[in-house]
Amino acid sequence: MKRRKLVKNLSLVGSTAGVVAATAQTIKAQTSSGTTYPRLQWRMATSWPESLDIIFGGCKLIASRVSELTNGRFEITVFPAGGIAPPLEILDVVQSGLAECGHTAGYYYTSKNLAFGFTTVLPFGLNTYQQLTWMESGGGYELTRKLYADYNLINFLCCSTGNQMGGWFTKEVNTVEDLKNLKMRIPGIGGEVMKRLGAQVQNLPPSEIALALERKGIDAAEWRVPYEDEQLKLNEAAPFYYYPGCHEPGTTYDLIINLNAWERLPLLYKQTIRVATMEAHQMAIAQYDAVNSLALKRLISSGTKLVPFSQEILAAAQKAAFELYEEQANENPTFKEIYTQWKKFRDQIYQWNKINEFSFDQFVMNHE
Amino acid sequence: MKRRKLVKNLSLVGSTAGVVAATAQTIKAQTSSGTTYPRLQWRMATSWPESLDIIFGGCKLIASRVSELTNGRFEITVFPAGGIAPPLEILDVVQSGLAECGHTAGYYYTSKNLAFGFTTVLPFGLNTYQQLTWMESGGGYELTRKLYADYNLINFLCCSTGNQMGGWFTKEVNTVEDLKNLKMRIPGIGGEVMKRLGAQVQNLPPSEIALALERKGIDAAEWRVPYEDEQLKLNEAAPFYYYPGCHEPGTTYDLIINLNAWERLPLLYKQTIRVATMEAHQMAIAQYDAVNSLALKRLISSGTKLVPFSQEILAAAQKAAFELYEEQANENPTFKEIYTQWKKFRDQIYQWNKINEFSFDQFVMNHE
Repeated sequence: MKRRKLVKNLSLVGSTAGVVAATAQTIKAQTSSGTTYPRLQWRMATSWPESLDIIFGGCKLIASRVSELTNGRFEITVFPAGGIAPPLEILDVVQSGLAECGHTAGYYYTSKNLAFGFTTVLPFGLNTYQQLTWMESGGGYELTRKLYADYNLINFLCCSTGNQMGGWFTKEVNTVEDLKNLKMRIPGIGGEVMKRLGAQVQNLPPSEIALALERKGIDAAEWRVPYEDEQLKLNEAAPFYYYPGCHEPGTTYDLIINLNAWERLPLLYKQTIRVATMEAHQMAIAQYDAVNSLALKRLISSGTKLVPFSQEILAAAQKAAFELYEEQANENPTFKEIYTQWKKFRDQIYQWNKINEFSFDQFVMNHE
Repeated sequence: MKRRKLVKNLSLVGSTAGVVAATAQTIKAQTSSGTTYPRLQWRMATSWPESLDIIFGGCKLIASRVSELTNGRFEITVFPAGGIAPPLEILDVVQSGLAECGHTAGYYYTSKNLAFGFTTVLPFGLNTYQQLTWMESGGGYELTRKLYADYNLINFLCCSTGNQMGGWFTKEVNTVEDLKNLKMRIPGIGGEVMKRLGAQVQNLPPSEIALALERKGIDAAEWRVPYEDEQLKLNEAAPFYYYPGCHEPGTTYDLIINLNAWERLPLLYKQTIRVATMEAHQMAIAQYDAVNSLALKRLISSGTKLVPFSQEILAAAQKAAFELYEEQANENPTFKEIYTQWKKFRDQIYQWNKINEFSFDQFVMNHE
């Protein structure tokens, strides 16, 4: 409980209120040191190979911006996946303090608690922009930081791919019946939903996906977005590219920081983390949308067939997803606490976005 | 031309490339002063009354964050509309140097050059997220900064309302014929489009809109978004609330800075402006979406009738808008240069967003 109280104070830096809400401790540290701030050298463990240039570039942007804003006194060295820990164990090494911070996806840790999905994305949940609004203005930071504090961490929303694609299929699927026994590479909560629709779900590292599709070891696989799917040559391994990525409407990553390390930072350094993560977040969105629109064009010219999921499949998947959430809420008090508030927020913002963003898109997207 | 070349170097700070691309001049200034940076006191003129709390709050957030990141050495005092200049003359006082910076909307200055519309919004143009992508990754900063440099200014995208509403109507409008001689308060390029559809377009300051509707001086008026329309009590003055705001799909504001003042800033201070405007931008989006979803609910409960514009009206308005742009492109070389690139970007990103964001929204928004 003490840790939860601590993060409640600290997390104020993550909101506008934090501008004036320094803790007594950090103010003292600043005053006694005048403008001479400590030299710090941190390590950032990440889940990303350097080849994922936008997201790994986002991590490097955080480090360079923090360094610049502190005159080189606060340096963060960014390590690709495997440099400090394997890609799916970033949370663990930051929790233990082996790395002071890490860049990863909450939903890689749903085996610890399914509630880690809320900081990344939930099937049929929030899109990238709604996720930001939920975190900053809808109570998301308050709720998820309690969960992260239980793991000795504080989380900052940072970098998003936007809405992803549904995946590559070697054959067309039109009905829920067509999903029965379909061998699909789709990890996480999206995989759980597909399992409930009858698919045989597997996980495979990205480097093995194309070969598995070609050799018919699997019938379908989702990875990420056109720009990154193209890098893995998935378009050469399967002809049908399904959309929308209803399992990942707005995949968003986190910078996570060890709470002891965070606590020792002068307020100025905390603020540089805040602004650098926000800059990296926006740059990732802007970059992904730009490169994806070009990559999609290339894929279509080289013969990829874009196919929308049928209403039947989408409706069945949405139903299965919310059944899963309701079951979890009954079993898992942390999940329940976040889900209840998240669901209310989702319903409200859907009603607003239906009137503004969606109704505009509906006209222009159908008249181009 | 010299000024254009200068801003080409300076504007690098506004992109990832800027991280390593300090000009020789600014590096020298930094080195000679060690960590002792100059004390600066700037003034920010704004177009906003304090009652527009989200956007005026965004301006105050920029000032407080810049101050914090420079240990109070770089202070910016924020003035509401009228404090330094009337709301529609902010560009002029920053251009002259009477204020070092200002927060305003580019499209308030379309009488100087219609191309100022591109930094804010164009009817049937880009939404808030596409606007960010265009500016950061689609060539928007490069193109618009050449225009602003001609007015001795540099522009930073900062704060957006998201997609606005279509406006308040005292009677229903179903066809283009219904718009003939309709007296509507709608300024700017949106007003120009309505004029071409036969409406009698006027401008009125916000404080006079509700009374004009009540006294039947006008038949319709657009202001902004539910949260702010409610503050002006427009819902008590007209029953029909039309959507979508096709004239303002993603209204985005600017921090503009006098180029001479900008040039004198140490690199660190430039970077604080960059990150503070990005933070304010995201916070404004998050706050608007949160308060608008609640305000919309209140408006509906208190009897407001939400009405979508007919396809006939939307199609006619879109046609009129693009005719206007093509005419301008023929007459105005600056407009043509930006428009040609902007239109290509718009077509590409619409194709991508149609597949990802829109197709997801289309399912979930129709199944709630």
